[in-house]
Amino acid sequence: MVNKWIEYLEQNKDQQLMKLKEFLKIPSVSALSKHKKDIHKAARWLSNELERIGMENVKVMETEGHPIVYADWIHADHKPTVLIYGHYDVQPVDPLHLWETPPFEPTVRDGKIFARGASDDKGQVFMHIKALEALLKTEGKLPINIKIIIEGEEEIGSPHLPKFIEENKELLQADVLVISDTGMIEKGKPSITYGLRGLTGLQIDIQGAKTDLHSGAYGGGVQNAAHALVQLLSTFHDEEGRIMVDGFYDNVLSITDEEKQAINALQLDDEKVRTELGVPELFGEPGYSFYERTSYRPTLEINGMYSGFQEEGIKTVLPNQASAKITCRLVPNQEPEQILELIKQHIEKHKPKGVTVKITPFDSGAPFVTPLNHPAIQAAGRAASKIYGTETAYIRSGGSIPIVADFAQILQVPIVLLGFSLDSENFHAPNEHFHLENFYKGMQTMCEYWNELAEIRFK
Amino acid sequence: MVNKWIEYLEQNKDQQLMKLKEFLKIPSVSALSKHKKDIHKAARWLSNELERIGMENVKVMETEGHPIVYADWIHADHKPTVLIYGHYDVQPVDPLHLWETPPFEPTVRDGKIFARGASDDKGQVFMHIKALEALLKTEGKLPINIKIIIEGEEEIGSPHLPKFIEENKELLQADVLVISDTGMIEKGKPSITYGLRGLTGLQIDIQGAKTDLHSGAYGGGVQNAAHALVQLLSTFHDEEGRIMVDGFYDNVLSITDEEKQAINALQLDDEKVRTELGVPELFGEPGYSFYERTSYRPTLEINGMYSGFQEEGIKTVLPNQASAKITCRLVPNQEPEQILELIKQHIEKHKPKGVTVKITPFDSGAPFVTPLNHPAIQAAGRAASKIYGTETAYIRSGGSIPIVADFAQILQVPIVLLGFSLDSENFHAPNEHFHLENFYKGMQTMCEYWNELAEIRFK
Repeated sequence: MVNKWIEYLEQNKDQQLMKLKEFLKIPSVSALSKHKKDIHKAARWLSNELERIGMENVKVMETEGHPIVYADWIHADHKPTVLIYGHYDVQPVDPLHLWETPPFEPTVRDGKIFARGASDDKGQVFMHIKALEALLKTEGKLPINIKIIIEGEEEIGSPHLPKFIEENKELLQADVLVISDTGMIEKGKPSITYGLRGLTGLQIDIQGAKTDLHSGAYGGGVQNAAHALVQLLSTFHDEEGRIMVDGFYDNVLSITDEEKQAINALQLDDEKVRTELGVPELFGEPGYSFYERTSYRPTLEINGMYSGFQEEGIKTVLPNQASAKITCRLVPNQEPEQILELIKQHIEKHKPKGVTVKITPFDSGAPFVTPLNHPAIQAAGRAASKIYGTETAYIRSGGSIPIVADFAQILQVPIVLLGFSLDSENFHAPNEHFHLENFYKGMQTMCEYWNELAEIRFK
Repeated sequence: MVNKWIEYLEQNKDQQLMKLKEFLKIPSVSALSKHKKDIHKAARWLSNELERIGMENVKVMETEGHPIVYADWIHADHKPTVLIYGHYDVQPVDPLHLWETPPFEPTVRDGKIFARGASDDKGQVFMHIKALEALLKTEGKLPINIKIIIEGEEEIGSPHLPKFIEENKELLQADVLVISDTGMIEKGKPSITYGLRGLTGLQIDIQGAKTDLHSGAYGGGVQNAAHALVQLLSTFHDEEGRIMVDGFYDNVLSITDEEKQAINALQLDDEKVRTELGVPELFGEPGYSFYERTSYRPTLEINGMYSGFQEEGIKTVLPNQASAKITCRLVPNQEPEQILELIKQHIEKHKPKGVTVKITPFDSGAPFVTPLNHPAIQAAGRAASKIYGTETAYIRSGGSIPIVADFAQILQVPIVLLGFSLDSENFHAPNEHFHLENFYKGMQTMCEYWNELAEIRFK
């Protein structure tokens, strides 16, 4: 039995593609002030489209930066409410000469649509709108309550979104937040990202003597700032890669049996990773695979360090300053502030002699995980598996998307990252594209997902 | 009883100063090719002067670079032979606008003569010539045999001198080498430098993955080059500052009782050093004073290190490269080549996992010491004490003068560094000057020293 909305989606492929191209033509580059008009044009285009398909309460809401488009349809009594988040702004296009076709003249080649924003994130936003249209046109209603916000500042770090969420808590209240701005682990394999790492960090500045010194006249008699830094930094890990900060791992959630199964199902190959990276061996916390180390386990990483003479050749200087930048990728339930505090205590405890140590914290972001067995995750997985005809991959990503943690914290809502891009699709680079197969299957998956969710009672 | 030559030196002060100015007026900057003519002029000026005072076999000897002036007087049968070494080239003068009077227009103010080369080293070279003149004019002969070489490339690293010494071993053969190109530890305190540290070093380059990596996607799963470097570098010292390279201290000569006395006589104040450097505490190998650590003990010093992101703020990168530059100040009887080998073995033993380590050695120079109780050192001390009316300081310096080690090695000759400059005299900087008191007393000291040496039988 083919659903009516599947039929509708099939029959309207030309129109979907035409409208997608229309959306992609708007050069809504958020980073460049010369595109301010285009940003507003994209917001209006979206609100018109949401009105047209039958969404309600459509608003272009102003912020101190670029506007946020809001719409909802909330007539499914006693059914769950989903908040969809996406963004209509895109990255700059330089270097322009590397684009095979102009970034704002969408072109289809080999089943892919090429344009800036095709996969990140206009294509995926539009996929959501078209899925809602299919349901509204064929059923006259949605199976669940839907709210949607689409912002225009994601590519510049969403500076005004947290305040917006805070101020519109009531309006945005939902049972689940769904975001389609992540990727699939490989072509044909639908993927749900159910966890992300958080971030905290600090800079360490070591000051020795007033000035750099001559290593002949002073060498051996005064602490070398580089030595002091090396001595301090060496205390952060043991030789096998474990983090040696007291209490660092205390709140880290263990990998559950369900997660172990999900990991096994991915059939990952560490040797392949090793070859790609060109290292003699992979290295990290003992007892974990590469994927576990980078997604389920926290890190404490030197991002940069410097002291003394850096040019070619030799300079017999005794450096009086040395600095290091450190960031930690955090996992649930580590709290950024607490980890920062533990690191400060560690530095205090291992303070080198003969120098002073200054600490400057960086911005933090919390880690996030929606339990793998959460019904909203499982429903998404069922929907995607059905449409793609294969098992869905459940993954945790090693990266951090600060806005996701902000949503989780402010709205206290479970989050499902169900995205359809592929790593090969050049987002943020020339020749960005989106596989139309995933555009079409994505729309179907969303219709299926909303119907799956209609069967679930939250709370 | 006043010696005839003291009387002669006193009576000819005006003429000495006039001739010194003449010598200082020649802008013999070795680093700048536009001064090539001046270099030759200075060499000719010296050879004329040496001829004039009665030295023999005067030659301007060509090298592949700037010429070397040679002269001798070797008629003191059965008396020792001294080789005097000095240089007639000078440092560049920039920044010119900081000179109170032009660098090549010698001016006397407050008992000091201001000009480029006044103390380093033209003033001290000329002091030797004038001392020889005083002896030759008043006695008609010298109390010992004297050979003198004055080179023109000291300020550019003496690139052609080692070969010259090697090729002229016979000509330069002597019982003692005397150099006046070092300083006094304080005004009014004659000082003999009887040891210098040597130098060896290497660069360590750590290579991890092919490229820098995203610390979210890869952090925790692949060795961070900065971590690997820190881990390796931290093995070179213990927390108290001892060098932990196996065998590093094996050949280091202990401080002798005589040296301990000489050190005590200096009445050094570590607290004063600490305040000047602005450090919370001095730091170094336990059991030694600041001066002992910097002059009698070897070092292993990081001169520079760098990895990853170095700008302001935060970049969540996992660095794939990290480098450090290390030099060691060596003391007798450490051998540069052997120490380098021990360090290489240490690195091999502590090689971090997951990366490759590349080592690039730097140039080396041997340490040097003339035993403190050597008769040539003691005679110099007696002469200087007599003229200055105070005890001579016997010091070892933490710095390295590669050419001194070359002389010691090729000619197998004891070396006496008896210099009259003061640290405050701005050599290599604007407003270089030389205290005329030391110019005059220096000439007397040299006359006295040659007479002292005449009483000694070497070999």
